Amino acid sequence: MPFAIEVTGFADEEGVRFASTLLGSRAVAGTFDESVLSVEDRAGISMREALAQFGLDPEHIGAAARARSELLAYIELHIEQGPLLENEKLPVGVVTAISGATRLAVVLSGMAGHAGTVPMAFRRDALAGAAECILTIEQFCRADKALVGTVGYINAMPGATNVIPGRVSFTIDIRATSDPHRKMAVADIVRQIEKIAKRRELMLQLDVTHENRTVPCAPWLKAQVAEAIAGEDYRVFELPSGAGHDGMAMIDIADVAMVFVRCRGGISHHPDEHVDTADADAGTRVLLRLIENFRPRDAAESVNP
Amino acid sequence: MPFAIEVTGFADEEGVRFASTLLGSRAVAGTFDESVLSVEDRAGISMREALAQFGLDPEHIGAAARARSELLAYIELHIEQGPLLENEKLPVGVVTAISGATRLAVVLSGMAGHAGTVPMAFRRDALAGAAECILTIEQFCRADKALVGTVGYINAMPGATNVIPGRVSFTIDIRATSDPHRKMAVADIVRQIEKIAKRRELMLQLDVTHENRTVPCAPWLKAQVAEAIAGEDYRVFELPSGAGHDGMAMIDIADVAMVFVRCRGGISHHPDEHVDTADADAGTRVLLRLIENFRPRDAAESVNP
Repeated sequence: MPFAIEVTGFADEEGVRFASTLLGSRAVAGTFDESVLSVEDRAGISMREALAQFGLDPEHIGAAARARSELLAYIELHIEQGPLLENEKLPVGVVTAISGATRLAVVLSGMAGHAGTVPMAFRRDALAGAAECILTIEQFCRADKALVGTVGYINAMPGATNVIPGRVSFTIDIRATSDPHRKMAVADIVRQIEKIAKRRELMLQLDVTHENRTVPCAPWLKAQVAEAIAGEDYRVFELPSGAGHDGMAMIDIADVAMVFVRCRGGISHHPDEHVDTADADAGTRVLLRLIENFRPRDAAESVNP
Repeated sequence: MPFAIEVTGFADEEGVRFASTLLGSRAVAGTFDESVLSVEDRAGISMREALAQFGLDPEHIGAAARARSELLAYIELHIEQGPLLENEKLPVGVVTAISGATRLAVVLSGMAGHAGTVPMAFRRDALAGAAECILTIEQFCRADKALVGTVGYINAMPGATNVIPGRVSFTIDIRATSDPHRKMAVADIVRQIEKIAKRRELMLQLDVTHENRTVPCAPWLKAQVAEAIAGEDYRVFELPSGAGHDGMAMIDIADVAMVFVRCRGGISHHPDEHVDTADADAGTRVLLRLIENFRPRDAAESVNP
């Protein structure tokens, strides 16, 4: 069966200017949220104005939407942005899923006090409490290979050398390759944080600020990616994508597959981001072979039930 | 033997405007550091200029110095700024010493990375390392009643929800009522931090930014303070001063004693700072009785060897 190959460059996956991700792919998936058109950048220019200044008509975003019936699959080639392929000494890998993520904002409130005059037994130190939470999250996620957990931001108030912190805010980012697994982990971690706060007599405020579903790659497509990798004489290695990608939007109108290419030190979004030319070549050959041998879902599933 | 009573109000004990403490008492003790005259406030006015604008002559600061031979003792009445007297249900207490303090600035450097793509086992998370240090300091100081240890400031870089912190700086403030004890504790804590950094493959930079000696109150004066407290029918309770006071300068020219008065919740330097009138009265009566019954050192030591 002949099929067309469309190469798409999506606008603003990162959401750098308007803090709103997946703009282009959401438009194509028909899930563009029109309320973001009013969001302003740091200079006070709204997304609506920026689109118009660029010569686009925001009223026509809806016209970009595609129907599921038009699409056979969505396939994306991307650098891993992590260290796993490098560690495996492999140039390419099969992505199993784009991990879902839950982000939480936590505030612990205790009692500020003079660092010299308040004995340890009298303290309700919000930073010591936060430190215990951070180690608990690390320990919990270390014990479970399907999880990653990160505290990336922390602020201790008032923040002076000689004052016991009375209030600490921090963020938590929990990711897993399955939604039920992530939700269970978040619930367990929240329970442990509640225990820590209670034992230390700290007030706890905890809000979920962001929740992204897991986007699994389609088994029938993963099988063809694996075939293409093996066809190029590389060992087939499966790994999750911890970072977000346009597939998170495209899943609403197509089955999704991703091929990862090794990058140096797992570094990305940084001037040190680097992919060897040979690895870029390996990724491209895998993608080419995948397209050349591509069987649509129905045909594929009759072969790989 | 008749003696004079001098009541002194020292300038700028806190160092709020020029970040330089004990200005007045250092002048009287003859230890005023002339280099601070060039320090500028936030508006760019130097201390030298501020003194002149106030009608003072910075060239004559040396004339404020007093000689040890002129002084029998230095006695200060102060609020506790801590919760111990309140906890003991006592309006007044005898200060044993003004605790010495060591302050350290710590920087832990690991590897920043994407919160989604770097598995836990591959991380060198500087904030998780700092959290372990904070709990270690807390645990160490909790186990030793003569110590307090505080991490009051922390900054995790780059500080984004979805980025593993690559670099964290924080401060440590350690106080004890004896210098050898504090120094030993600081050395032990530093050794533990070094171990944590090594195990977690974090680079460690650690600097002592501030070191204040302990100022012990003179035993012969403490005995007379205790006598005055007992004379006012209060139980005699000894406690250290974790905060700094002008006695830290005056020790260079006189034996020092301090009487502490209970304050509510240990709160100070805050609009909620509060002393009951009855407690202020108790402190004043103790001070009055102390002065009325005062015996100079030689006479005192022949009685209390």
